[in-house]
Amino acid sequence: MIHEAADRIRPIAQRTPVLTSHSFDTVSGVNAFFKCENLQKGGAFKIRGAANLVFSLDKPKQVIAYSSGNHAQATAIAARHVGAACTIVMPADAPRSKLEATRGYGATIVTYDRSRENREQIASGIIEKTGATLIPPFDHPFIIAGQGTATLELLEQAQKLDALIAPVGGGGLLSGSAVAAKSANPKIRIFGAEPERANDTCQSFRAGQRVEVTPDTIADGLRSPSPGKLTFPIIRELAEDILLVTEDEIRSALKFLLTRMKILVEPSGAVSAAAVLHGKLPAGIGRIGVILSGGNVDFEQLAEI
Amino acid sequence: MIHEAADRIRPIAQRTPVLTSHSFDTVSGVNAFFKCENLQKGGAFKIRGAANLVFSLDKPKQVIAYSSGNHAQATAIAARHVGAACTIVMPADAPRSKLEATRGYGATIVTYDRSRENREQIASGIIEKTGATLIPPFDHPFIIAGQGTATLELLEQAQKLDALIAPVGGGGLLSGSAVAAKSANPKIRIFGAEPERANDTCQSFRAGQRVEVTPDTIADGLRSPSPGKLTFPIIRELAEDILLVTEDEIRSALKFLLTRMKILVEPSGAVSAAAVLHGKLPAGIGRIGVILSGGNVDFEQLAEI
Repeated sequence: MIHEAADRIRPIAQRTPVLTSHSFDTVSGVNAFFKCENLQKGGAFKIRGAANLVFSLDKPKQVIAYSSGNHAQATAIAARHVGAACTIVMPADAPRSKLEATRGYGATIVTYDRSRENREQIASGIIEKTGATLIPPFDHPFIIAGQGTATLELLEQAQKLDALIAPVGGGGLLSGSAVAAKSANPKIRIFGAEPERANDTCQSFRAGQRVEVTPDTIADGLRSPSPGKLTFPIIRELAEDILLVTEDEIRSALKFLLTRMKILVEPSGAVSAAAVLHGKLPAGIGRIGVILSGGNVDFEQLAEI
Repeated sequence: MIHEAADRIRPIAQRTPVLTSHSFDTVSGVNAFFKCENLQKGGAFKIRGAANLVFSLDKPKQVIAYSSGNHAQATAIAARHVGAACTIVMPADAPRSKLEATRGYGATIVTYDRSRENREQIASGIIEKTGATLIPPFDHPFIIAGQGTATLELLEQAQKLDALIAPVGGGGLLSGSAVAAKSANPKIRIFGAEPERANDTCQSFRAGQRVEVTPDTIADGLRSPSPGKLTFPIIRELAEDILLVTEDEIRSALKFLLTRMKILVEPSGAVSAAAVLHGKLPAGIGRIGVILSGGNVDFEQLAEI
């Protein structure tokens, strides 16, 4: 399914570059190969999954997603590509830049009051009325397969990796990456990276079942309360561990990537680099693929980090 | 000489990626191919010229440069690579990060008081005493040839360019780029980009002879008072025009590159993009190579931009 996804999304997804950094390697003690999904179309890996699902539909007239972040833009871009109408349900207090970017890709925005309304209910209402197809953010086989395509590319761009690490929110990226990597090399070691303050997947991993938390982290893309029903069993089976990082470690990694490597990565996208930079990996890892999952940060936001 | 330089510096210089941006093209009305020398070793193109000269020396024991910026770090990196001692003459009030980075590459820093002392005299004194070889920042055939190697790569990475634009300070990058591009394709149109507040090359270009100015711009790498004796005749012969940008246009381009394209480019490195983004090019240009020359900005500096 991941190979099929790679073919399906080729017209829209970029083959993002893989960067290395002598100074990062010196500080961290590993050889890191950064898969730069911050340079992806729409500024994040999300286009891979969204496009894979949208493009698999038979002449879709209308699609819908609820997201205040990168999945919203990705769904809007994919829908526009196939000429489908797109509705995005977003909280009324989402950053203006994200509202505008999503609208800029041609989507209709429906806002809701986060304190009083339920986005799933709003979306269900619209689906009933219009027959729109829901594009979920992570818990769908085609979304997971699409997200795995970044790792297919990475394995071609950087050979003989001992390990792979990816940020984990709902788990679409990590589960897809794990399947792609383990299928190519069953010995590769798979790690998730998660904020301490949004440690739902780590807790679930330790407990052996899905645990729910109340996330509170600057990594806004990883504020899922729990891993997905489909993503969690894959992560549980294929990942070696979920590594936790503090808010300060996320900030420090973001600054390192920006000032030393000259690339802008959003807090959520930098948790994988943060885990490696701050020594969370077990011993014995030489060459590691590090997925930087996105780069959507406002200039004003950046000054506050 | 540029082809020889490319062979000579291969052990140290990165083949930097070329990025494209749908949103930049939409705003600017051209197809831009960004040669990302901000992702180069040392954070700028300067390693190309410095390494070409240092590596051409016969068993150098000691080299010396005066620079408060990217050429200092580049010379230190090149010297360390061949095991030569390196002295850098820097103003005492240079940013601490630049002093530390240069020292981190193993160079000895000699500071001077910018208001009372002359850096050329200090360097001459050290050369007399130690026999060190001076590595000039731009006005030397091997430096010019080294800087031209970025364009050799760009011409392979992006085919059928109508034009090429590069920032111009002392003119090493622009003259080397112009020779590389015009040798491969005599019809390619060459442009320099310069801050209005450091318009020495533009004024010289119009006057037909080297003019001196007192630069005052945030683009600290382009604060040369005049183009070089060797670089200017090349620029005069091969460039079509020198395009000027305001300080605000530089800031706006830097922010666009950062927030939309997710790459950090320093003010000096962004003047080429600023000229394209703000419509300074003449009509009739479709595909253009845009050299982003460096990315060394402090995190604190960034907040002030």
